[in-house]
Amino acid sequence: MNNRISELFGIEYPIVSGGMVWCSGWRLAAAVSEAGGLGLIGAGSLHPDDLRLHIRRCAAATKKPWGVNVPLMYPQIDEVMKIIADEGVKIVFTSAGSPKKWTSFLHDHGVLVAHVVSSSLFARKCEEAGVDAVVAEGFEAGGHNGREETTTLCLIPAVRKATSLPLLAAGGIATGAGILAARALGADGVQIGTRFALTQESSASEAFKARCLELKEGDTKLLLKKLSPTRMVKNPFFDAVEEAEARGASADELRDLLGKGRAKRGIFEGDLAEGQLEIGQIAADIADLPTVADLMDRLVREYREALEKDYSL
Amino acid sequence: MNNRISELFGIEYPIVSGGMVWCSGWRLAAAVSEAGGLGLIGAGSLHPDDLRLHIRRCAAATKKPWGVNVPLMYPQIDEVMKIIADEGVKIVFTSAGSPKKWTSFLHDHGVLVAHVVSSSLFARKCEEAGVDAVVAEGFEAGGHNGREETTTLCLIPAVRKATSLPLLAAGGIATGAGILAARALGADGVQIGTRFALTQESSASEAFKARCLELKEGDTKLLLKKLSPTRMVKNPFFDAVEEAEARGASADELRDLLGKGRAKRGIFEGDLAEGQLEIGQIAADIADLPTVADLMDRLVREYREALEKDYSL
Repeated sequence: MNNRISELFGIEYPIVSGGMVWCSGWRLAAAVSEAGGLGLIGAGSLHPDDLRLHIRRCAAATKKPWGVNVPLMYPQIDEVMKIIADEGVKIVFTSAGSPKKWTSFLHDHGVLVAHVVSSSLFARKCEEAGVDAVVAEGFEAGGHNGREETTTLCLIPAVRKATSLPLLAAGGIATGAGILAARALGADGVQIGTRFALTQESSASEAFKARCLELKEGDTKLLLKKLSPTRMVKNPFFDAVEEAEARGASADELRDLLGKGRAKRGIFEGDLAEGQLEIGQIAADIADLPTVADLMDRLVREYREALEKDYSL
Repeated sequence: MNNRISELFGIEYPIVSGGMVWCSGWRLAAAVSEAGGLGLIGAGSLHPDDLRLHIRRCAAATKKPWGVNVPLMYPQIDEVMKIIADEGVKIVFTSAGSPKKWTSFLHDHGVLVAHVVSSSLFARKCEEAGVDAVVAEGFEAGGHNGREETTTLCLIPAVRKATSLPLLAAGGIATGAGILAARALGADGVQIGTRFALTQESSASEAFKARCLELKEGDTKLLLKKLSPTRMVKNPFFDAVEEAEARGASADELRDLLGKGRAKRGIFEGDLAEGQLEIGQIAADIADLPTVADLMDRLVREYREALEKDYSL
């Protein structure tokens, strides 16, 4: 094996499934790992007790490497980290916070650490914090997103220059051709969210998945910039946020409008009107709901086909 | 030659310099064409009499193919099109309007037509209108921009599916690796703006160029979405627009704030505080001001280096 990401995590293909709220349970994570990628359980939408359950089920479902994504602003973060250590998790992807606080704790417990960034400034901070790999995620990604709005095409070369760490590109990648583009830009591998959210094994509701398959270009947009910028699908809830922002609503007003549990309502419960439907721009290019095994086969086949083409000038 | 863009325009490399207001005069266009690409004069910031002058100077400076970019919302569009026909221009890139109105006029005068789009919907309209090539430009591009905010990484595969026309990718491309990424996504070639704006031959002011070389990630942003979405550099004018938008300013208020001639003031006259400084996100990755000849050599060398790398899985 010749790929830094595959070598680091002991996997067959440098393809990671993102830890997406309400999509990335043990079933999706185990399926991705069984198919030769690296599956992540998304801790962000799991109660600590449920996280423990998902970790145990994932460990029972596959002997291949898998990991957990932990958003560092998680309220019971200490409890989550204790569970990860107790359960012997070997790989953690941290996001939405500083990599400084938890990297050495995780290393002390024998855990490999990757951290998700949206700028080369934070990529340098990852290197200082001693993380093992960096995920650089661009503006086109679904859900929570960077303030700089840097797209994957612009972000990957910048992060590649800023750090020598193994690098995963994220945001807007859903095909083998997209993986090749990411590697041409300097990434060693990819973290794929949206494409894995729209598989059989994703724990999102069928209504959410069906809605995402219908999306066209321009049907998602980054809103809530006065709180935490979030890419979501246009629906009546989206319209209410957009209307409030257009008239200059304050952060407090937006917080009230958002309320609690909007993403669960949209993604997990399938309330297509009043839920917050988080998905990436590349959903517009996705039209089916394959099993993870079929999708991984397809990504690898497409990648090899893209690589075989004649790109001579 | 094996490349559809190179064959169509009779050029050595499938690299086009965008028709950028206040940057793309005859000097830049001729230099790009002399170096084996396709140089475009940007008609958008030229009075019709000046356009005629630039066309004649470009024709005198190079015997290789070159063209003119015409934003179709140009007030004296009929006069501009008459000049193009009279002067025997052979290649026109149209933008900011429907390709239906002028394509047959241009074809009748022996002119090849490419049209710039920001969505696959408009790419299909280009095919219906009979244009010869499509430029698909993503969210990261400088200046005026699509409402859908689709990034180049997401846009190119979508446009590739929507039309069989020769396809140029634009937005966020400034290196050979970026060109390879664009081709992996399905583009036949690239239109490059920002990188050519920051060359010796660009007609932008030295103050504007120097400011752009200092930019970091997040230093440009898309504003004026209630008028026509425009990517510009953060400066006091930008702050005033952003502040107005945050409090819900109307389109009329924004129009008053914008006034007339902001882009000229910023780009051409070098008023870094009160001018509108239009440049793409990829400026953050640009640190020098080469001649066009040196830049073209570098792009081709980088491209071949990127192509030689080992991308095996």
